[in-house]
Amino acid sequence: MSQLYASLFYQDDVTEIFSDQSLISYMIQAEVALAKAQAQVGVIPQSAADSIEAIAQKVALEQIDFDALATATGLAGNIAIPFVKQLTAIVKQQDEAASRFVHWGATSQDILDTACILQCRDALQHVEQSVQQNYQAALTQAQVYRDQVMIGRTWLQQALPITLGHKFARWASAFKRDLDRIQAMKARVLAVQLGGAAGSLASLLDQGSAVVEAFAQQLHLATPSCTWHGERDRIVEIASVLAMIVGNTGKMARDWSLMMQTEIAEVFEPTAKGRGGSSTMPHKRNPVAAASVLAAANRVPVLMASLYQSMVQEHERSLGAWHAEWLALPEIFQLCAGALSRTLDVLEGMEVNTENMQRNLECTQGLIMAEAVMMALAPKLGRLNAHHLVEAACKTAVAEQKHLKDVISELDDIKNNFSTAEISMIFKPESYLGNIQAQIDAVLQEAQTGVAK
Amino acid sequence: MSQLYASLFYQDDVTEIFSDQSLISYMIQAEVALAKAQAQVGVIPQSAADSIEAIAQKVALEQIDFDALATATGLAGNIAIPFVKQLTAIVKQQDEAASRFVHWGATSQDILDTACILQCRDALQHVEQSVQQNYQAALTQAQVYRDQVMIGRTWLQQALPITLGHKFARWASAFKRDLDRIQAMKARVLAVQLGGAAGSLASLLDQGSAVVEAFAQQLHLATPSCTWHGERDRIVEIASVLAMIVGNTGKMARDWSLMMQTEIAEVFEPTAKGRGGSSTMPHKRNPVAAASVLAAANRVPVLMASLYQSMVQEHERSLGAWHAEWLALPEIFQLCAGALSRTLDVLEGMEVNTENMQRNLECTQGLIMAEAVMMALAPKLGRLNAHHLVEAACKTAVAEQKHLKDVISELDDIKNNFSTAEISMIFKPESYLGNIQAQIDAVLQEAQTGVAK
Amino acid sequence: MSQLYASLFYQDDVTEIFSDQSLISYMIQAEVALAKAQAQVGVIPQSAADSIEAIAQKVALEQIDFDALATATGLAGNIAIPFVKQLTAIVKQQDEAASRFVHWGATSQDILDTACILQCRDALQHVEQSVQQNYQAALTQAQVYRDQVMIGRTWLQQALPITLGHKFARWASAFKRDLDRIQAMKARVLAVQLGGAAGSLASLLDQGSAVVEAFAQQLHLATPSCTWHGERDRIVEIASVLAMIVGNTGKMARDWSLMMQTEIAEVFEPTAKGRGGSSTMPHKRNPVAAASVLAAANRVPVLMASLYQSMVQEHERSLGAWHAEWLALPEIFQLCAGALSRTLDVLEGMEVNTENMQRNLECTQGLIMAEAVMMALAPKLGRLNAHHLVEAACKTAVAEQKHLKDVISELDDIKNNFSTAEISMIFKPESYLGNIQAQIDAVLQEAQTGVAK
Amino acid sequence: MSQLYASLFYQDDVTEIFSDQSLISYMIQAEVALAKAQAQVGVIPQSAADSIEAIAQKVALEQIDFDALATATGLAGNIAIPFVKQLTAIVKQQDEAASRFVHWGATSQDILDTACILQCRDALQHVEQSVQQNYQAALTQAQVYRDQVMIGRTWLQQALPITLGHKFARWASAFKRDLDRIQAMKARVLAVQLGGAAGSLASLLDQGSAVVEAFAQQLHLATPSCTWHGERDRIVEIASVLAMIVGNTGKMARDWSLMMQTEIAEVFEPTAKGRGGSSTMPHKRNPVAAASVLAAANRVPVLMASLYQSMVQEHERSLGAWHAEWLALPEIFQLCAGALSRTLDVLEGMEVNTENMQRNLECTQGLIMAEAVMMALAPKLGRLNAHHLVEAACKTAVAEQKHLKDVISELDDIKNNFSTAEISMIFKPESYLGNIQAQIDAVLQEAQTGVAK
Repeated sequence: MSQLYASLFYQDDVTEIFSDQSLISYMIQAEVALAKAQAQVGVIPQSAADSIEAIAQKVALEQIDFDALATATGLAGNIAIPFVKQLTAIVKQQDEAASRFVHWGATSQDILDTACILQCRDALQHVEQSVQQNYQAALTQAQVYRDQVMIGRTWLQQALPITLGHKFARWASAFKRDLDRIQAMKARVLAVQLGGAAGSLASLLDQGSAVVEAFAQQLHLATPSCTWHGERDRIVEIASVLAMIVGNTGKMARDWSLMMQTEIAEVFEPTAKGRGGSSTMPHKRNPVAAASVLAAANRVPVLMASLYQSMVQEHERSLGAWHAEWLALPEIFQLCAGALSRTLDVLEGMEVNTENMQRNLECTQGLIMAEAVMMALAPKLGRLNAHHLVEAACKTAVAEQKHLKDVISELDDIKNNFSTAEISMIFKPESYLGNIQAQIDAVLQEAQTGVAK
Repeated sequence: MSQLYASLFYQDDVTEIFSDQSLISYMIQAEVALAKAQAQVGVIPQSAADSIEAIAQKVALEQIDFDALATATGLAGNIAIPFVKQLTAIVKQQDEAASRFVHWGATSQDILDTACILQCRDALQHVEQSVQQNYQAALTQAQVYRDQVMIGRTWLQQALPITLGHKFARWASAFKRDLDRIQAMKARVLAVQLGGAAGSLASLLDQGSAVVEAFAQQLHLATPSCTWHGERDRIVEIASVLAMIVGNTGKMARDWSLMMQTEIAEVFEPTAKGRGGSSTMPHKRNPVAAASVLAAANRVPVLMASLYQSMVQEHERSLGAWHAEWLALPEIFQLCAGALSRTLDVLEGMEVNTENMQRNLECTQGLIMAEAVMMALAPKLGRLNAHHLVEAACKTAVAEQKHLKDVISELDDIKNNFSTAEISMIFKPESYLGNIQAQIDAVLQEAQTGVAK
Repeated sequence: MSQLYASLFYQDDVTEIFSDQSLISYMIQAEVALAKAQAQVGVIPQSAADSIEAIAQKVALEQIDFDALATATGLAGNIAIPFVKQLTAIVKQQDEAASRFVHWGATSQDILDTACILQCRDALQHVEQSVQQNYQAALTQAQVYRDQVMIGRTWLQQALPITLGHKFARWASAFKRDLDRIQAMKARVLAVQLGGAAGSLASLLDQGSAVVEAFAQQLHLATPSCTWHGERDRIVEIASVLAMIVGNTGKMARDWSLMMQTEIAEVFEPTAKGRGGSSTMPHKRNPVAAASVLAAANRVPVLMASLYQSMVQEHERSLGAWHAEWLALPEIFQLCAGALSRTLDVLEGMEVNTENMQRNLECTQGLIMAEAVMMALAPKLGRLNAHHLVEAACKTAVAEQKHLKDVISELDDIKNNFSTAEISMIFKPESYLGNIQAQIDAVLQEAQTGVAK
Repeated sequence: MSQLYASLFYQDDVTEIFSDQSLISYMIQAEVALAKAQAQVGVIPQSAADSIEAIAQKVALEQIDFDALATATGLAGNIAIPFVKQLTAIVKQQDEAASRFVHWGATSQDILDTACILQCRDALQHVEQSVQQNYQAALTQAQVYRDQVMIGRTWLQQALPITLGHKFARWASAFKRDLDRIQAMKARVLAVQLGGAAGSLASLLDQGSAVVEAFAQQLHLATPSCTWHGERDRIVEIASVLAMIVGNTGKMARDWSLMMQTEIAEVFEPTAKGRGGSSTMPHKRNPVAAASVLAAANRVPVLMASLYQSMVQEHERSLGAWHAEWLALPEIFQLCAGALSRTLDVLEGMEVNTENMQRNLECTQGLIMAEAVMMALAPKLGRLNAHHLVEAACKTAVAEQKHLKDVISELDDIKNNFSTAEISMIFKPESYLGNIQAQIDAVLQEAQTGVAK
């Protein structure tokens, strides 16, 4: 990933978690926890664990030779093998005895998987917080704009009126479900990996399970019932929830970018110096945040396909399929965090042009209210008559390019039954909003009780 | 989908749920429930609802003209529009008054989405049952083969011994997590859809929310806090769990197909007349079930990408992206059910060749036990000495094409410290299995307590 | 694939080519060609080939028991094994001697792959013809609308004027490249497959290559230099060209569906009874053809991912990956043909609302012409002055909600240098179209000379 | 992309082409070519072009502030907008007059697309060279091992004998087709982009087409018939050929990693210090090159899906879909180059264990020769008798765990018709290789004549 593009698509904190530096740092954390766990169980001397911990925390990261690591990784097939060599050498410089117990009984995948889960936990915390912020922003906007009438659109065509608050409430509801998904999976997926060369922890003889338990406690992660070197559904489940979040933000970005179209101009991304303008085209307001979010929503789905495919792993530990995870998962996290960050900017700072919303409600000259009119006439004229009358009036309005209200108002059946004020009221979009307020209330209520439906 | 291929990749019950006949049947069910809900709330006459229900259940499905429906669908852009016309006409033949209340206030997507959720509920029940059967089969085999030693393989290379029961236990554990995932999402995803043309249920005036509630009760589905015409994460979440299940079965199929290789020949798919044999190549045992499962594991991931992509929907109801769901979701269900069905056959009927497992454990002439030997010598010789001694012995064994045990046995350091019987014991794979039994027990325990870790 | 959905997404002729009936018919064709080729080379008796041909052509297809075939396919792992059994039995009923030479020396994949290539050839011919028709339609429209000014849009914002003809010319140019791609690959990809059980045609002894040559001649297909049971790039290349075609149509569908938006309303899909209307929303013109094309453009890319993935096949003939092809390729063909068919309808029958195009050109009150104005003033005022003047005028126009022309017209610098008529001319979008006519000519020229650039 | 992983999956030269530094360098090259082209046509002063060229080549790259660029990119929505500002400022420091003509009449996408095509040309040259080297390596190995008999495997089961040279010949043939594909597309895809804000080059008035022509000449790229800002098939076509190459290498990596399995051990990746070994598991030879290639073959297909999806662009220039290209295309190039580089290492340095090939040919105790035996007996015993006899003998051999030759040799029908030497000859795998030598010759011949079939 180009640094130039990172500013467009990623979010700094989460990108930092998946940097080379941080990855090595998480791997060191895993090795230290392993040593401490083994000392606790009595597999290695406490002094060795103490020494490994002290050296690792003080000097390890700065002494790691990243260039040498990169070169060796290409030959070894993973980062952990050369990393363990370097770490052992670093410990050995200060405590040769302790160095013999670095990475004791573990396989490279134990450290890589556990470091990956540690990254996921930290990145997931960031993502969860960001979803929460987006949720709150959408809830707030749902309240602010609960009565702001706008046209609802289906198949890219004007349909019936809704309110902008209803749109925000629907988005809030999606974020609520995303939060529930994150909560629901944490205990299942955030588990340590420790199985040794073939999943049996054979070199720990009869102390394997005790060490796994202690290792998990050290890292505040769950203890899995068995090793999962080759059963990768945990990794995929984490990513799948992120992908749903990205999809939800993609939907929002599609909406606001369509609403920003010059001819529609109902909402705008918040202005910022250097954002989305054009010197020779002064009328342009490019939806640059939407572009980033939509790019993520194009890309994350296919990265998910890569991850699902990579579940087909061979035997006890795989080749190729496991490697593919290393590329896909960090990027999904980064794109998800980037999409959430940009969406939050827009949800919080969205500029709303209520005049244009009103103008657009008028652009069919009343045709969008045909159903409302029919419903209003039915009690007095009978449903069938009302239907025929309105259908005919619509045809007239279109043919003569008149406003439907004007056509309707001139009909005897109408004049005899409705006052001018009543007719005006019938044609007001805000009188035909169904249960939208109740829906908004239900979404707001859900935020109070915490029960998503 | 060709009928010829259906027998290879699908499962009959689930395929039936997604047949054209069944889809229409679920749509009729949704329309009947809608009418009954509206009668209950007082939106339409009870007599109309009764009539619609009676006619729908008696004659609707057989009177639907599927050819006309197919033709009209291409023009209308979805199935529901021409379906509602046909259904209304069918009701009208017997009860013109009632026919006016067919599909009252609903939009085509309300019926299509609700019918889809009904399909999902039924298909999910089948899938859950099948995962449960696979889980039980894997648990049973984990017990049967908990002591059956075999070589563990990593990077497609022999690594250290495991037991076949450990492999089954890991698979059982994956099925357990799949079951937990299904349970965790049901309440969130199995919700009715009812929003009318733009999500506001405007034509139901102030009775929208009451009707949604009654509609959900009629169908025993959840009431969503708001319409979700354009927020599609529920659909995607259902599919994402299926995709994880398929991935897990794909991993198993990869394993058993590799273990069926002529040169390895440790396990076989159960025999059946006409299955996987070859008249001119009498030694062949083609893993045909694995081929089906692996094809599903190739295909479902990309169908998921289609679904994640399709979350980017426009405004209140979308075009194109929504359509893409109609193709992807039914196929994911069918491939998942097919993969589960074939996996169950193999898990339950797997033929195990223990002699070949033993033979393969021997094929490195003891090198796979090098670590075990080192661990056994260390207490008496010191860890470092043990390491050097075994490393040298391995080189000798490879160079002279001898069994490592023979090389080791001739060394003075060994003769002086270990009896022949002790040496034999050290080289027994079953003495170097670490915490495998504890892992199997943990997986079995999990099945009792229902708590997956 | 549901029959109901076929009318939405597919095209009948190509769907017929990939029906079960047709597949078996192509397989029969391959078996007949094989027998004739072998008789020609002297591998089997001419009488046997004659008999196989006669029986196959007369009765084979109608005597095939498709239900039995479906059942057996699930066990055998492919269609060819039970098909050959049935075909042999059918021949045997009439000529036992000949029946022994059915499928002589071939493997099931030889027949399936060759039948697949025959399907591809026929379907590709249809696709090519359809691309050609779309190309001609786009060329025609490019000429018809070469001077029809409309606003060009970038980032979903109004940018500068273009003509509708320019848009059609660009689309024509894409179809031209698609035609070139189809031509370029035909000789490479349309090759027979004949390798026997492991690619060596061993059972044909020293006559293998001669039979392959004769087999290819019988079917008018290319002779490959070697068997390609496990090297699947030919299949993937065919599909990749189809996917580019679908992508190109998807772009067009996106454009016209956006241009059909109620607020924009510049073009419309052709009207047809039952197409895209709504009784209660009389203003709606749903872009139903676009929905189908966009669904294809969502789906084909991921089916391509499945095919690219399936190139990773094991050894001489694969399992699973090969199977995945059977599902993906026919569907890509059908979706491509469907997308082309719907696009052709729209390209040929597109309704153009030139008044709305004019109205939309005006909706920024002249701001879209800011660059044009600056360019026009520069020769008299100097470029820098012109820039400052226009920039200031734009700000005034926005702030005071005036037309830019009105603001500009009142400036002394302008009054002194330009007549009212000159100013009007500067603000005409048709005077600022750059090299659009030259581009259209180049595209038209390309169609004459056949050289795409 | 982590630097640590780059060594595993990428290739340095191609990665350098897609570095941030190089991207900016290609963009500078495009801006210089644009200025020179415009001077040549007379649009801008020659002195300005000279100045821009001189400054750009001397100082531009080192004066670019990449950190500022990264920050501004996030706001602007693409790299070109802030890049042009910086470049203009850099030129302005030395020649204010010239600075006014930087990026004259172009839009940001013109520069980004043209720079992208320049990157593609250079990277494609590298890829082509690497495919050529792989092709030569495969051809050489096809000759070296043309007689090296090994077992052919289908469905992961032993089938009939082939030679290792045949496998290499098939791979060579795939590389040949890849080379042909690269050649066939170059003229079509390597074209400049220059359309200005909306594709009309309006600000160049009537000189647009002349400038495009001159621009293309400056860069030795093709002149497209029209702008292609929104029609992205060229980009996708380039990537699609790379994806086929990756798929072909993925197939090879699957094969050699399977052949490296401990139990099979027929070929090995070349040894190198630090490559694929394990200190505690001395028998391991991890296929680390295969892991990298297989990871690429998992990943590139889904990146292709992203690109195909991104063809659905809005109007004259798109948002989101265009952005997605920036992430996918460079990575596809890098993964392709990486996969080719690792495959070349293995093709050139593959270690072949002919003894194990022989051993594996024997592991079915002659059953793999059943068809050969039947074919050999047929002339003397009649085909049907031969078939029955061999079938019975196979059953006996399996039941009594005898070698098929021993069973056969004891039959009277055999003793009476064949000498012991003849029987031995029949059972030699090398006597049952069909047209394999002719196929190898055809592949070698193709390399001479350049005509791929």
